[in-house]
Amino acid sequence: MSNNKKYVYLFNEGKADMKDLLGGKGANLAEMTNIGLPVPPGLTITTEACNEYYVFGEKFPPGMEAELEQGLKILEGKIGKKFGDNENPLLVSVRSGAKFSMPGMMDTILNLGLTDTSVQGLIKSTNNERFALDCYRRFIHMFGDVAMGVPHHEYEEILAEEKEKEDVQFDNQLTVKALHTLLDRYKALYRKHTGEDFPQNPYQQLLLAIKAVFGSWNSDRAIVYRKHNRIPDDLGTAVNVQAMVFGNMGDDCGTGVAFTRNPATGERKLYGEYLINAQGEDVVAGIRTPLPISLLEQDMPDIFQQFESISQLLEKHYRDMQDIEFTVERGKLFMLQTRNGKRTAAAAMRVAVDMVHEGLITKEEAMLRVDPLQINQLLHPQIDVNAEFQVIATGLPASPGAAYGSVVFDANDAEAQGKAGKKVILVRTETTPDDIHGLVMAQGVLTSRGGMTSHAAVVARGMGKPAVCGCEAIKIDYTQKLFTVGDLTVKEGDFISIDGATGKVILGEVPTIAPELGGDFAEYLGWADEIRTLGVRANADNPKDAQKARDFGAAGIGLTRTEHMFMEQERLPFVQKMIMADTIEEREEALSHLLPFQQEDFYGILKAMEGYPVCIRLLDPPLHEFLPNREELLVEITKLKCTGGDSDLIKKKEKLMKKVDELHEFNPMLGHRGCRLGITYPEIYAMQARAIFQAVAQLTKEGIKAIPEVEIPLVIHVNELAFLRKQTVEIAEQVMEETGVKFEYTVGTMIEVPRAALTADEIATEADFFSFGTNDLTQTTFGFSRDDAEGKFLQHYLDYKILKENPFVTIDPKGVGQLMEIAVKGGRSSKPDLLIGICGEHGGDPESIQTCHQLGLNFVSCSPFRVPIARLAAAQAAVIEKNQSK
Amino acid sequence: MSNNKKYVYLFNEGKADMKDLLGGKGANLAEMTNIGLPVPPGLTITTEACNEYYVFGEKFPPGMEAELEQGLKILEGKIGKKFGDNENPLLVSVRSGAKFSMPGMMDTILNLGLTDTSVQGLIKSTNNERFALDCYRRFIHMFGDVAMGVPHHEYEEILAEEKEKEDVQFDNQLTVKALHTLLDRYKALYRKHTGEDFPQNPYQQLLLAIKAVFGSWNSDRAIVYRKHNRIPDDLGTAVNVQAMVFGNMGDDCGTGVAFTRNPATGERKLYGEYLINAQGEDVVAGIRTPLPISLLEQDMPDIFQQFESISQLLEKHYRDMQDIEFTVERGKLFMLQTRNGKRTAAAAMRVAVDMVHEGLITKEEAMLRVDPLQINQLLHPQIDVNAEFQVIATGLPASPGAAYGSVVFDANDAEAQGKAGKKVILVRTETTPDDIHGLVMAQGVLTSRGGMTSHAAVVARGMGKPAVCGCEAIKIDYTQKLFTVGDLTVKEGDFISIDGATGKVILGEVPTIAPELGGDFAEYLGWADEIRTLGVRANADNPKDAQKARDFGAAGIGLTRTEHMFMEQERLPFVQKMIMADTIEEREEALSHLLPFQQEDFYGILKAMEGYPVCIRLLDPPLHEFLPNREELLVEITKLKCTGGDSDLIKKKEKLMKKVDELHEFNPMLGHRGCRLGITYPEIYAMQARAIFQAVAQLTKEGIKAIPEVEIPLVIHVNELAFLRKQTVEIAEQVMEETGVKFEYTVGTMIEVPRAALTADEIATEADFFSFGTNDLTQTTFGFSRDDAEGKFLQHYLDYKILKENPFVTIDPKGVGQLMEIAVKGGRSSKPDLLIGICGEHGGDPESIQTCHQLGLNFVSCSPFRVPIARLAAAQAAVIEKNQSK
Repeated sequence: MSNNKKYVYLFNEGKADMKDLLGGKGANLAEMTNIGLPVPPGLTITTEACNEYYVFGEKFPPGMEAELEQGLKILEGKIGKKFGDNENPLLVSVRSGAKFSMPGMMDTILNLGLTDTSVQGLIKSTNNERFALDCYRRFIHMFGDVAMGVPHHEYEEILAEEKEKEDVQFDNQLTVKALHTLLDRYKALYRKHTGEDFPQNPYQQLLLAIKAVFGSWNSDRAIVYRKHNRIPDDLGTAVNVQAMVFGNMGDDCGTGVAFTRNPATGERKLYGEYLINAQGEDVVAGIRTPLPISLLEQDMPDIFQQFESISQLLEKHYRDMQDIEFTVERGKLFMLQTRNGKRTAAAAMRVAVDMVHEGLITKEEAMLRVDPLQINQLLHPQIDVNAEFQVIATGLPASPGAAYGSVVFDANDAEAQGKAGKKVILVRTETTPDDIHGLVMAQGVLTSRGGMTSHAAVVARGMGKPAVCGCEAIKIDYTQKLFTVGDLTVKEGDFISIDGATGKVILGEVPTIAPELGGDFAEYLGWADEIRTLGVRANADNPKDAQKARDFGAAGIGLTRTEHMFMEQERLPFVQKMIMADTIEEREEALSHLLPFQQEDFYGILKAMEGYPVCIRLLDPPLHEFLPNREELLVEITKLKCTGGDSDLIKKKEKLMKKVDELHEFNPMLGHRGCRLGITYPEIYAMQARAIFQAVAQLTKEGIKAIPEVEIPLVIHVNELAFLRKQTVEIAEQVMEETGVKFEYTVGTMIEVPRAALTADEIATEADFFSFGTNDLTQTTFGFSRDDAEGKFLQHYLDYKILKENPFVTIDPKGVGQLMEIAVKGGRSSKPDLLIGICGEHGGDPESIQTCHQLGLNFVSCSPFRVPIARLAAAQAAVIEKNQSK
Repeated sequence: MSNNKKYVYLFNEGKADMKDLLGGKGANLAEMTNIGLPVPPGLTITTEACNEYYVFGEKFPPGMEAELEQGLKILEGKIGKKFGDNENPLLVSVRSGAKFSMPGMMDTILNLGLTDTSVQGLIKSTNNERFALDCYRRFIHMFGDVAMGVPHHEYEEILAEEKEKEDVQFDNQLTVKALHTLLDRYKALYRKHTGEDFPQNPYQQLLLAIKAVFGSWNSDRAIVYRKHNRIPDDLGTAVNVQAMVFGNMGDDCGTGVAFTRNPATGERKLYGEYLINAQGEDVVAGIRTPLPISLLEQDMPDIFQQFESISQLLEKHYRDMQDIEFTVERGKLFMLQTRNGKRTAAAAMRVAVDMVHEGLITKEEAMLRVDPLQINQLLHPQIDVNAEFQVIATGLPASPGAAYGSVVFDANDAEAQGKAGKKVILVRTETTPDDIHGLVMAQGVLTSRGGMTSHAAVVARGMGKPAVCGCEAIKIDYTQKLFTVGDLTVKEGDFISIDGATGKVILGEVPTIAPELGGDFAEYLGWADEIRTLGVRANADNPKDAQKARDFGAAGIGLTRTEHMFMEQERLPFVQKMIMADTIEEREEALSHLLPFQQEDFYGILKAMEGYPVCIRLLDPPLHEFLPNREELLVEITKLKCTGGDSDLIKKKEKLMKKVDELHEFNPMLGHRGCRLGITYPEIYAMQARAIFQAVAQLTKEGIKAIPEVEIPLVIHVNELAFLRKQTVEIAEQVMEETGVKFEYTVGTMIEVPRAALTADEIATEADFFSFGTNDLTQTTFGFSRDDAEGKFLQHYLDYKILKENPFVTIDPKGVGQLMEIAVKGGRSSKPDLLIGICGEHGGDPESIQTCHQLGLNFVSCSPFRVPIARLAAAQAAVIEKNQSK
């Protein structure tokens, strides 16, 4: 069996854009080689070879070994050293290199090629027996541990014993004799575990090392990492084989790592550290403290200058901040790796802005340099990374921002203490809607159960409050009012801090840094606004949130829910009266009391959003949500009867129970709600429409431009919308006549049920706008309710990869996305300039925003704190589309 | 304003296929005229004129009157009489004639054209003053009443007074003098009510009469009728103006109505009645008893012979049984109307079968002659129409069949008495699932509330038991155990009968006729089987139903629900143990007890359907359905605690409550059910698969051909199906190995959630078959649950025409139908020969069956009693498609 594939590339045969085939490390080594930088020669075995290795049942694909041998020959020729030579042996490092860097993969084997024979050559060529033997010792350890699974600690134990025997403290204090003993013991250990002698053929060593790299692609840790980071399993890893250079051959040697700019702040200045006379592993081992890179200028001025100019060259070449590894061998600088450097959100933004100013990248390119979700970190106070603090546990980073306060375990306590001006953190196993009043008054919330979409997480994000959720390490004891984490006990009143951006729980109070939204932030998002074509609005139910949304750059309100207004204490009695009404007259009388409240609500929001559209959704939830809980009532009545309670009270409660029963639904999500209420009780929507238009008339009189959009929820048939639109128009005309004020308004609908999407062509004939309610649309398209799915089986589905994504977080493209496409096409076929938006949590999810852009929506709407994220995500979508069309 | 439309057609200008324009009556009069039958000349004003009459604000469209005058001139010429002539006046009848005959429309005005002048002409030309005056009297009455709204009873009062004065009994005994007085008083009455003199211009009379016909198109009753019968409002009615002929000018005159075959039985023999010396209205008035048509042979042999041959000619011409009106004037036969005759189900089938045998129609045509829903009547015992009985109320015909029994008001009583061998009718305001045990033992059910889709109706249809629902006339008093209807009181134990095919409630016991399913029935449905391409299966959960389905012609089981089996008393404890299990081991132990039961179930059904496929759906409902009701438990615990009950019992109940709470769902329909159970508890489906395959192995050993189809419910993603299919295949292979028996089986899925339909291309890669669960698909596509919608707002939606049809009865073509189309196309794109069916109630609805045929499904599946309906509906769909493609 033979084929025409090329499995082995010399560094000078590759390029930076061959990452798929050569992995990130291999492609960059090739690129540096080709632009003439001092890179020790080497070769890369392709990711394809790795995949075929699995196809062939963990055997190298035919032809690969021959290519490898040929490549090694060329290497030997270039360097003038030979594998296994007893005069001047070639030694190599072997490193994995997947397309994305990935923990869990085998990292590095150094000094491969050393055998009992070639170590003699190394002694000769370096004239340093101690050094050569030490290299051999390290190699046997590393190869055995990394490639063959010989337990690391057993090597360490032998080493410790020998040091004790010699009575020395550091490895490099061992004598040549001791090193010989060590080598013998290491080899014996190797034999004990592998059943074979330590391989004395360098080529065999190499093949075993390559197998180990390939094998590590499917290590448990790598698999888990890929799953978590959504990296496909079939990418495979490449293997880089590179001639060794030594930073540990004397004081004219050294090794270091540096970023071209500061990865924490983005400042344009080399940032990194180095060690004289050391190998890379010594830096990591932490035995000696590395020095800041700036000191290299004094230590090795020529090297420093050379490195600095190479850094600048690499940055220009890659047009991004680089993270570089280098080694100095006997006064000569070698580049061992370069890659785009990881950075904080603040640094990402500053680097992007600076590079635009430097003319290095365009504004479009700058858009792709910041992860929209990272922006979240910038909007909230952050833990000061320079401060010292004790992390006692880590949960899910559920809602960004840092906060501290004294611990409370009960929403009522949180409310009471919060009102008294105390800063508190609410700690619960989980939160429920009953805890809202506590959440409102707390600085942040910590839960021991629940995921990124749990109640606490969703509510906290909506409020812009920090939350750490699902922190399973803490065990809460409500009765004693404390939680434990390991041996530590934290009692009510003790201070903790939480960092919702990282999930950290910290004992005591830590200093935080306030968000800085001017400067780079404002400039960068200004560019995003220039580039994006998708509008961004916010969801807000009150003037305060509306103002916040405006501050964050929202160009309108995409969703104002009116039901929250119904829940307020002074209104609820009228709402309940309305529900209990037996006649239209009684109902209208109750509604007349609600009208002024609603008018005031709408007045405030419309005023806060002067000049911008405000989409107001008429009443949506089933009416029983405004009545007492059925089960509590049942228990109350049972108790009253059991204990011979007041018969008038029983009667009253029973009357209430009768109504609750009447309104009871088997599946409230699929029940008598949304415009179904408006159809069966037109007077409710009539009151709301009147409240909106009276507010608009009032504002218009005051010279304030109000742009109301009246939104009808849960439409399934054009006839519903036609009926309710007609009523709305009539009321608008009445109000205009009564007030003598002319005003503009539009009437549209949510698309949140499959049938609405499927019949959008019909519905559009009665709609001025569509707004996708993707929460409900997802629930009905999947046939599962979020409340039930998340508590019961959704996590299982995600864990077992039945579903790749949580469809409540990211729009399901094939199901929900397909319906959205049908709806957009249908709607625009009837009304080409139909305004179409999306509200609901997906409107703030970058991946979903890209879907919305592709579908040609006019705007997304999300919670105020998500607005900056959405602005950037929308710009990215525009850039990606432009790039793809090139 | 003028246009080129033709509003007036002479009879010789029309044709039978112009029903849209000329109405049914006008088109048939034209047809008869053109084939040379003796039809009094006349003309038809088109339905278009009626529609434009409304467009022009209740004014005749321009040009219509001129055409009418011209047409009348031609009529006068043909007949040789003149409108309003004082020698030989033209008299006409004016009749409405819409496309579909319709109660509530103005019917007939006879003798139009009589005035004080022309009545003299009629006296002269007939030489019969009494006759002429009597005609005039009748005309003033009819015109005033029908066209101008003069109260009918006031005419009657005057007539009665005059008869009293003259001391006579019958109208025709009045003297000429008395008739003159009567005419004066009638004219005065007309003036009193209309403010105008009785019109003395025949042409003016005619225009007023035409206006009255047009106006009656929008009478309340006509509107309600159209709504109920789904007749569009924009058809309009035509008006027929026809020269009068008189059957009441002496003993050589007469009038009659006859069917070409017996409309009750279908027997091929003239069936009808006639009266000598009478006008049509006399037959209706019932003053004289009409004679059977057979006697006409003696009375007027020539006329009879002529009529008989015309009847045969008409039947051949129209190729259907005719319903004919005729009049004999002075020995000459005139045809006044012919139309296809209405008939009972039995007659429809017999006529169709006979006509095929007679060579009059093809088998394909015969298929369209019977309404599939009517077939239902033939499958159940029917009230003997020849018996005498007292109908005391009429409700909705909710489930066909006749039954009698003594009244009980409680399901427990029904069960007890039923078990004791008594025949009982269960009478309830409504039924709930708690009444099932009573329904099972009752002969039939009568409810005072609820519609065709209420619980009682659905359950009764499923059981094939008669039901009359929503019979609001009966007022039930549970405490006194009686119901009243008007003045009548019916007590517990009294006998009543119900006819579920007509909705009649009858006092006492009436004789019924057993269904006859051989003969014509078998032959006719045999033809349907030849013609249809769509397969018909039945839904059955036990061997008895399976046998019934087979008897009715089902070629397999399309849905076997396994959850009903779980509910049985001896099994429920194990089911509950399984649910309460804390570990897999406990759960498997509980499941091992259920395995033999399930195996026995499947053995029985597969055996009963030997040689036919049996589609078995694995467990579908959420597990909490098998636990006690949460609220009852809550009340029970509250009471126990309140009264200091046994603490062990409380603990036990609380443990149960904890599990119930754990499983509690906000929206059970959208919760942890269907294959979500199979994914999270694979051992449940594993047990079921094993039970199926062990039963199959056992049958195979016995030489019985079993064809199992394992159906996975509620799939939303191909990964679910892939996982469960793999498990099922493994178990099948295990069972084959264990038993040493090879057998065939397939694994497929329900398509009952929008996402499944939208991703059918992917799902098909793992499915051998699809079965549409249109109940759930409708619920999720519309976003309303059936239970909640039907109780709360669906009726309102239907009443107000927001929805045209109940989507749970007939597939919603635009929404659900569109998803089905996507699914069929997607599925077959991946697997061209994918087997696709539908189960659920839509599978037995003729309109939905047509949709299924059009979509290219392989089969429909419905309840056993619906199988014959489905067979015919499927044949009709094939014929309609063939006709359309011509």
